Amino acid sequence: MNNFSATYTDQYQLSMAQVYFKKGQKDHNAIFDYYFRKIPYDGGYAIFSGLENLLEIISELRFNESDLEFLKKQGFEDDFLKYLRDFRFRGRIYSASEGDVVFPTRPVLQVEAKIIEAQIIETILLNLLNFQTLIATKASRIRLVAGDSTLLDFGLRRAQATGGYYASRAAIVGGFDGTSNVVAGKNFDIPVSGTMAHSFIQSYDDELEAFRDFAEGRPDGCVLLVDTYNTLKSGVPNAIKVAKEMESRGEKLLAIRLDSGDLSYFAKESRKLLDEAGLDYVKIAASNQLDEHVIKSLLEQQAPIDIFGVGTNLVTGDPDGALDGVYKLAFSSDKPRIKISESIFKVTLPHKKQVFRMKDDHGKCIGADAIGLFEENKITEMFHPFEPYKSMNLEKFHQEPILKKVMENGEMLIDKRSLKEISEYSLSRLSELPIEYKRFNNPHIYKIGISERLRDEREKLIRSSKQKLK
Amino acid sequence: MNNFSATYTDQYQLSMAQVYFKKGQKDHNAIFDYYFRKIPYDGGYAIFSGLENLLEIISELRFNESDLEFLKKQGFEDDFLKYLRDFRFRGRIYSASEGDVVFPTRPVLQVEAKIIEAQIIETILLNLLNFQTLIATKASRIRLVAGDSTLLDFGLRRAQATGGYYASRAAIVGGFDGTSNVVAGKNFDIPVSGTMAHSFIQSYDDELEAFRDFAEGRPDGCVLLVDTYNTLKSGVPNAIKVAKEMESRGEKLLAIRLDSGDLSYFAKESRKLLDEAGLDYVKIAASNQLDEHVIKSLLEQQAPIDIFGVGTNLVTGDPDGALDGVYKLAFSSDKPRIKISESIFKVTLPHKKQVFRMKDDHGKCIGADAIGLFEENKITEMFHPFEPYKSMNLEKFHQEPILKKVMENGEMLIDKRSLKEISEYSLSRLSELPIEYKRFNNPHIYKIGISERLRDEREKLIRSSKQKLK
Repeated sequence: MNNFSATYTDQYQLSMAQVYFKKGQKDHNAIFDYYFRKIPYDGGYAIFSGLENLLEIISELRFNESDLEFLKKQGFEDDFLKYLRDFRFRGRIYSASEGDVVFPTRPVLQVEAKIIEAQIIETILLNLLNFQTLIATKASRIRLVAGDSTLLDFGLRRAQATGGYYASRAAIVGGFDGTSNVVAGKNFDIPVSGTMAHSFIQSYDDELEAFRDFAEGRPDGCVLLVDTYNTLKSGVPNAIKVAKEMESRGEKLLAIRLDSGDLSYFAKESRKLLDEAGLDYVKIAASNQLDEHVIKSLLEQQAPIDIFGVGTNLVTGDPDGALDGVYKLAFSSDKPRIKISESIFKVTLPHKKQVFRMKDDHGKCIGADAIGLFEENKITEMFHPFEPYKSMNLEKFHQEPILKKVMENGEMLIDKRSLKEISEYSLSRLSELPIEYKRFNNPHIYKIGISERLRDEREKLIRSSKQKLK
Repeated sequence: MNNFSATYTDQYQLSMAQVYFKKGQKDHNAIFDYYFRKIPYDGGYAIFSGLENLLEIISELRFNESDLEFLKKQGFEDDFLKYLRDFRFRGRIYSASEGDVVFPTRPVLQVEAKIIEAQIIETILLNLLNFQTLIATKASRIRLVAGDSTLLDFGLRRAQATGGYYASRAAIVGGFDGTSNVVAGKNFDIPVSGTMAHSFIQSYDDELEAFRDFAEGRPDGCVLLVDTYNTLKSGVPNAIKVAKEMESRGEKLLAIRLDSGDLSYFAKESRKLLDEAGLDYVKIAASNQLDEHVIKSLLEQQAPIDIFGVGTNLVTGDPDGALDGVYKLAFSSDKPRIKISESIFKVTLPHKKQVFRMKDDHGKCIGADAIGLFEENKITEMFHPFEPYKSMNLEKFHQEPILKKVMENGEMLIDKRSLKEISEYSLSRLSELPIEYKRFNNPHIYKIGISERLRDEREKLIRSSKQKLK
């Protein structure tokens, strides 16, 4: 679907790269943190997604000849372009596992590489991780309320252009069962399904005839759309006739689909008609502007809906269009680095770091991740990152390191998992999280703290930076 | 960047296609309308975008061998797959010009093709037009308030994955000047520009040294980011030193960039410092969560900002994640078609149609588009689509037909324009629209009406459909 060249980047990455190249700094070692500041949808957690996709792309990322010609016209210099011709990313990456439950302000991923290489991959890394994490988180919220119902991604037509391709992938990570998107199904090995459109029925003079032709022409997983003219007077009765005809051929109608009107009412009435006709095996699918809140409400009303097709609100991450993930320098040229900001909340964390998840004796999260220096093995006390008088003793907890080495010398170190496996992993991680963090309204805030050593290192850098400004 | 195969579609399109194929209906003539129901951002108009991009893609759309293998596994039948192997779109398309000002509920584009072909292209058409129209409309709103300021798209890192590539294109259509997105710049011939990141400055022990290296290593269009440590005490003074050094080498600093804090205050103070140093030619660029409302406010405060870098809010179309464009059957198998809905506002318009824009003697829009049957040349009276007692006499107006034939037998009929040309066309069309339709708060509602003949045709179909349900 996509051929990523290394020009899938912001021009300033290449401007900075040329300067590093010309000033003899390109091979300086650097560490960048990827993290986000705000959980989308005012939720209590996010589901990290896009990693395995990204690692594959990064390991193949190159500049081709037409890229280099274009960059020459942009004023980049010949010796630098020669460097770019041989560019490949040869760095190391530590990361949370794809599908893990993640929280703001702490590193979800760390890149350790030559500074020029780390800079060139910044944009594609942010672009793919920010978006897939946004969508996997949305999908996870929908899965939380949907129980065992089948969840299908129907969003491609209103997705943000080819972003929909990655949305289909991330939806599975977050707990969806399938997609209508054929090319995503093919390339990411996602179950593909689909029903029929109103236009198909309109193209016939008669709804019954349309249903009949459809069931004969595509009997596998047949779903009939019943709301083109009148759901209960026409659509469902006609679907029942066709279901009976299918039975006589030894086939089974999979489902009917409702796409307008009051879905709770129509689902209940349709269920009655189907059951009265002895078609209790025929499922009910519903679509039309669904999201986690509408599905929650439908199920609370005991609407007998078995399959939810979720479109626009899933694939665009409505109402949040973006995850605010950033990529910040923590170390370079053998020194810890920091960005002092106008706002204390935007001050970055220096040094190579590890993140520890606190768990009780039953393997349940207690609701805290602590960030330490990479060489720390256990954090005894964690401090609030911005309120120095707040701290918490961690001695009694099991401490699980979250960042694992996933790339070395530009090669993926982890075995490729299927999306199904990533999704199952995600659900198992989510099950370790207490319910208070999963509710939609004012979820409990997961604590993120820093170790004493990290706090002291940061303080030292802030002081020396302020000193210089005097 | 993207290789679109015809599997960039929803599976149900192919299910319906197989049925049309098997039931001998695939070559039946069909007409589909593309239109949207709601203007994004509660605005008074939308800018149509994506058309020329779409037409190029559609004219090349094919199923390849690996697609066919995948579809075979999905249960599609051999004779149908054989048809798909030779598939190409050979239909006709009528459309508004890309860049035109468009309004809800009336056809923006009409596809006239064999029903099987029209169905197979539905998803990609919706996907590319919905999104690019959403973003071009956002860009146009930003251009409206930004006057002659330079507008740059900085959004790729938080775009919805590769959707950002099309966002960069649509931003230019809507009036932006350039992008940071290198691959979009290369493939769509968009001016590319970029500045520097905080990480570059952090990677040095000293801000001045960082600026100096950057200006030497990449003097072309050099922009220095001045807010890493302290904008007025450190960033701007250091930028001034480097600007003077550049002068001594016969070079010129293009701009400084502000990316945090109160942009109005910092722009004014920075301007003073630059001017006092005799650097009145050095521009001020600003970024950080900008959108049309923030830019409007900054300019109302007379913040001396010359260049605006707009990111997330532009490329994701915040706060609207999607345009609600639909593709509805209007005619097939030699008959007009209609979809009756639970809501009167969703009843579709049958028949092949033309849209006429009403203009006064000065070429100014009077604020009304009338939809007639395709063979009508002039609409004398237009009727409110849903309130039959409301009508408007149109005899005194010039009537400009909006839908032009842009594709015949699957080949593009129009000359490819540069994005700059499309953008200029868009601005000229927008200038024909009275200001009342362009304001942000409660814009005047543009009237859309239907001709008497179209109204009567629709009535007839509604009646006969209701008749059948009795």
